[in-house]
Amino acid sequence: MVLTNGQKVLAASGLDAVYTSCEYMMRYLTGMAAENGCVIVDKSGTTFYTDSRYIEAAKKLFEGTDVTPTNYKQSEVLQRLAGYDSVGISFRETAHVEYLALEKAGVKAVDADKAFTDCMIVKSEWELVNIERACNIAEDAFNMLLPNIREGMTETAVAAMLEYNMRKLGAQGLAFETIVAFGANAAVPHHETGLTTLKFGDEVLMDFGCRVNGYCSDITRTFLFGDDGKHEAFKKAYACVLEAHNLAQEKIVAGMTGVQADAIARDHLKANGYGELFTHSLGHGIGLNVHEAPSLSPRASELPLCDGMVFSDEPGVYVEGEYGIRIEDTVVLKNGKIKSFMGKTQKILLIL
Amino acid sequence: MVLTNGQKVLAASGLDAVYTSCEYMMRYLTGMAAENGCVIVDKSGTTFYTDSRYIEAAKKLFEGTDVTPTNYKQSEVLQRLAGYDSVGISFRETAHVEYLALEKAGVKAVDADKAFTDCMIVKSEWELVNIERACNIAEDAFNMLLPNIREGMTETAVAAMLEYNMRKLGAQGLAFETIVAFGANAAVPHHETGLTTLKFGDEVLMDFGCRVNGYCSDITRTFLFGDDGKHEAFKKAYACVLEAHNLAQEKIVAGMTGVQADAIARDHLKANGYGELFTHSLGHGIGLNVHEAPSLSPRASELPLCDGMVFSDEPGVYVEGEYGIRIEDTVVLKNGKIKSFMGKTQKILLIL
Repeated sequence: MVLTNGQKVLAASGLDAVYTSCEYMMRYLTGMAAENGCVIVDKSGTTFYTDSRYIEAAKKLFEGTDVTPTNYKQSEVLQRLAGYDSVGISFRETAHVEYLALEKAGVKAVDADKAFTDCMIVKSEWELVNIERACNIAEDAFNMLLPNIREGMTETAVAAMLEYNMRKLGAQGLAFETIVAFGANAAVPHHETGLTTLKFGDEVLMDFGCRVNGYCSDITRTFLFGDDGKHEAFKKAYACVLEAHNLAQEKIVAGMTGVQADAIARDHLKANGYGELFTHSLGHGIGLNVHEAPSLSPRASELPLCDGMVFSDEPGVYVEGEYGIRIEDTVVLKNGKIKSFMGKTQKILLIL
Repeated sequence: MVLTNGQKVLAASGLDAVYTSCEYMMRYLTGMAAENGCVIVDKSGTTFYTDSRYIEAAKKLFEGTDVTPTNYKQSEVLQRLAGYDSVGISFRETAHVEYLALEKAGVKAVDADKAFTDCMIVKSEWELVNIERACNIAEDAFNMLLPNIREGMTETAVAAMLEYNMRKLGAQGLAFETIVAFGANAAVPHHETGLTTLKFGDEVLMDFGCRVNGYCSDITRTFLFGDDGKHEAFKKAYACVLEAHNLAQEKIVAGMTGVQADAIARDHLKANGYGELFTHSLGHGIGLNVHEAPSLSPRASELPLCDGMVFSDEPGVYVEGEYGIRIEDTVVLKNGKIKSFMGKTQKILLIL
């Protein structure tokens, strides 16, 4: 029988039972999510409560695992939960109104958010396979897009085409809203993709990702749409951001803290006069959420990075009104070293 | 000065202040959402707290309105909230961990979920404009898609092309995961779009929608990809579902309850022997959420439907392993009668 992540989280919580109605946590515990339902884990196994729309699919998916699909009836779930001495829930991912309903039903709910986070931060082989597939799709979609970018296209049109490619290649959805920024729009790290049209000589920044079985990819590429000879400062900064990006992948090792990892890229940018222009963190964890633990930043916790953690390596430099550069891979720590999931797209400055 | 929805919700709550960090509620109160931030409304006006990434865009958007954008600092927000006698929050859209933080800071938080729901259920002219635009894009995208559907395409490929069209036409995102179901897959109301390929004679069911300024559209169309002469039962049921769909639009008037509205379509299907096969509600409210109040169902509340409410009209008939039919428009109650936002796509059985 295949053990899902339920027993892992239960053990980490040290409690009698773990309960969640949060979609991504349900998916983490069992491999499946449902709009309406919940999961209970105790020592006897994992129960996936869902409604009739999902029950057949659930039965098929859970065959041979420790998960039992059951028709969802809120009153029965509450009654079962009230029977435990204590039930672990994530206070961060439980609505206050649901907490009150649990309390009213006599459930002794305690915060198990740390148990979820501690387990989810280290990915299993199956999780890594999904993330790698999401990364491959994102890179293939980008390479398919490049020859179709034309002068006069809007940011939205480019985003639409990229998203279409990802979808066609098997992505089940986007990991987040695609960012396409032309020219000085790239100087805004969270630029909202809009109707700006592409001109010869513009820089292009694209930050995007997709999902496979709920797992995300996250990638950013910056390039030039033709070279109008006015990009000296941009090119100098690009080279430095790429060095910082590569240095991070060479030098980050298991055992470092997120602060130390961030400093590898940050110190290189500082030494070259770009310190003030790197206005965000080096990286964030990636999994069922596109932003999760661990954090690679000057304000990260003391938690040492370890094998199985997946995160972004994304140094950037932004000059308001002029240009913005970000180069981002999704990477994993494996055998103590960084392995990038991205190797199919060009990072040496591309001039279309 | 333009008054946003802040004062409306504040008045409905009857409290000193209203607070939210929920993205769609922030958008409802001010017209803008931010990943990291919150909104406080009191009698003096509305404050939109956000981080430096969004502050410039916020200033521009809020010019001439009662909303003031301010840099977000959690400690300052908590201190300000603690100064009110009572603060309305939505217990449904507040995480328990945030509730605890408010409580710890001495904030007297009371549930204002009903105030939000009561206001959001009746749409303003500006909201209706956005919903109508999202509906037009969805229909135009569908019409653009039809001539490009070919034998052998997968459900995913058809969904990708439709989504690309919506994006190109100006949609800012999807309202929900697109459902494309070929053949007997259509019998599953929430079929997961997959790799089934299209064959001559297949029925096709597509349920989809997009977003404009956060507001959703929701539409379902069912048609035949060629006629192999084996669709007699399907065609008979289709005609009856379309009658039920049209009857609902003719006969629903302001003042009816959701139960009465649902019964118009349900009774017609029952009278023709399809009662047991109509396994879901006639409709749900549509706005910043694709599923919100009001509900048009046998289990709906006594709340009378009124002008400005937007909801779906979506009767359906499902025969497991054989066929599924659903015909859905997004509609609004205006001058006491139903006005559909959809008029550009064919509802008389389409045979491609």
